[in-house]
Amino acid sequence: MSSAMGSPTNVFWHECAVGKGERQKLVNQQGCVVWITGLSGSGKSTLACSLNRELHSRGKLSYVLDGDNVRHGLNKNLGFSPEDRTENIRRVGEVSKLFADAGLICIASLISPYRKDRDACRALMTDANFIEAMLLSVFMNIPLEVCERRDTKGLYKLARAGKIKGFTGIDDPYEPPLNCEIKIEQKNGVCPTPCDMAAQVVSYLDGNGFLRA
Amino acid sequence: MSSAMGSPTNVFWHECAVGKGERQKLVNQQGCVVWITGLSGSGKSTLACSLNRELHSRGKLSYVLDGDNVRHGLNKNLGFSPEDRTENIRRVGEVSKLFADAGLICIASLISPYRKDRDACRALMTDANFIEAMLLSVFMNIPLEVCERRDTKGLYKLARAGKIKGFTGIDDPYEPPLNCEIKIEQKNGVCPTPCDMAAQVVSYLDGNGFLRA
Repeated sequence: MSSAMGSPTNVFWHECAVGKGERQKLVNQQGCVVWITGLSGSGKSTLACSLNRELHSRGKLSYVLDGDNVRHGLNKNLGFSPEDRTENIRRVGEVSKLFADAGLICIASLISPYRKDRDACRALMTDANFIEAMLLSVFMNIPLEVCERRDTKGLYKLARAGKIKGFTGIDDPYEPPLNCEIKIEQKNGVCPTPCDMAAQVVSYLDGNGFLRA
Repeated sequence: MSSAMGSPTNVFWHECAVGKGERQKLVNQQGCVVWITGLSGSGKSTLACSLNRELHSRGKLSYVLDGDNVRHGLNKNLGFSPEDRTENIRRVGEVSKLFADAGLICIASLISPYRKDRDACRALMTDANFIEAMLLSVFMNIPLEVCERRDTKGLYKLARAGKIKGFTGIDDPYEPPLNCEIKIEQKNGVCPTPCDMAAQVVSYLDGNGFLRA
C-alpha cells in the first residue's frame, strides 16, 4: 500500500485503488493538460473560456486554471520576481497534472514567457507514479502590436509609461515555443473568433482520441 | 469578462462561462472536500482509498490528495518547520477547493494537527468568486497507543528514539477538532474496517445530497 521513496525522507507514496484509467472510463475522456501560452492580450483567457464551454456542450468535464485567478489563491504568496514567476508556473504545472490524473481536461492559461519554465512543466508530466499526463501546448501567435492595440487590461499603457517593470513583450522577453501542438494565428490579418479558436483545439483533441475513454 | 481586484495589483479575475453548477450536473454530484485528519497510523490513507473505491463503484468522480504524495510534487519545496507545515496545508486546501469547484469529491488526507491550520482551510472555502465549497471534516479518533502499535511506517519507533523531531503525538501536539462532521472511532475496542469507515462517510454524503446534482 505504501513504499519508502528516496527524498524527502520519511515521506511515503500511497498507491490508491482507483486509477486514472478507471476515472477516465467514468467520464469518457482522457485526462490531459491544454497549456495556453502567449502575450498579455493575445486571447488566452478568451480561448480558455470558449474551449471550456465547447467541451462542456459535448459532455466533457474540463476546468480552467487561469494564471491570474490562481494568484488570488494557491499562488497569492508569490510576486513577480524571476524565482516567483518560475514557482508560479511550477505550481500550476503540478496542479494541472493532478487534474489530468483525476481524468479532467485541464485548461491552463498563463503567459508563461520562458521556454525553460514551460519545458519544466512538460517534464513534470512524466512520472513513475502517474500514467503519462499529456500536455498539449497551444501557442497564441498574435503579434505584439495587435495585443498592445487591444490592451484589454490597460497594462501595456502602464508598461510603456514605465509604471510596470518587467512586462512581457515590452521590457521582458517572450520566448515563442519551438514545438507546440497547436498554433493560433491571424489569417490575412484577421484574428480567429473565440469559437474558431476553440474549434481548432477541440478538433485536435478529438482527432487524437482525448474525447473518448 | 474581467474585473480589477484589490490585491495584488494588476492581477485580474476572469469569470468563466461554465460554472460549478453546470459541471455538477454533468457528473451528477456536488463538488466538495472530505478532509481526513488524524494521527500517523490512524487510518487516513486507508479510509481515503476505500472511500475513493466506494464512490467510484457508485459512478462518482472523486480524487485523493494525500499529504505524503503532494510532498513529492506540488509541495516538494516545503520542509517540516511550523511555517512550512502551515504552507503545506494551505496549498492542499487551495487545491482541494479548485477540485471541489471543478465538481469533484476531493478527499484530502493529511495529519493536519493544528486547529488554526484546519480552520484556515475551512475559511478558504467561502469566497465571493466560488459557490461555497463544502468542507466535511472527518476526524480519525483512534487512540495514540493503537496508532503507535500499528506503526505502519516505522515512524513512531524513530520518533521515540529521538531520530525524528517534532513528530505529531510524540513531541508535537495533535489538536482534536472541536467540530467535525464525521468521527471514526473504535467500538468496544475494535477499529472499524476500511469498508465500514467508507460506508460511514458515504452515508453522510448521500444523506446530505452530495451524491446527486
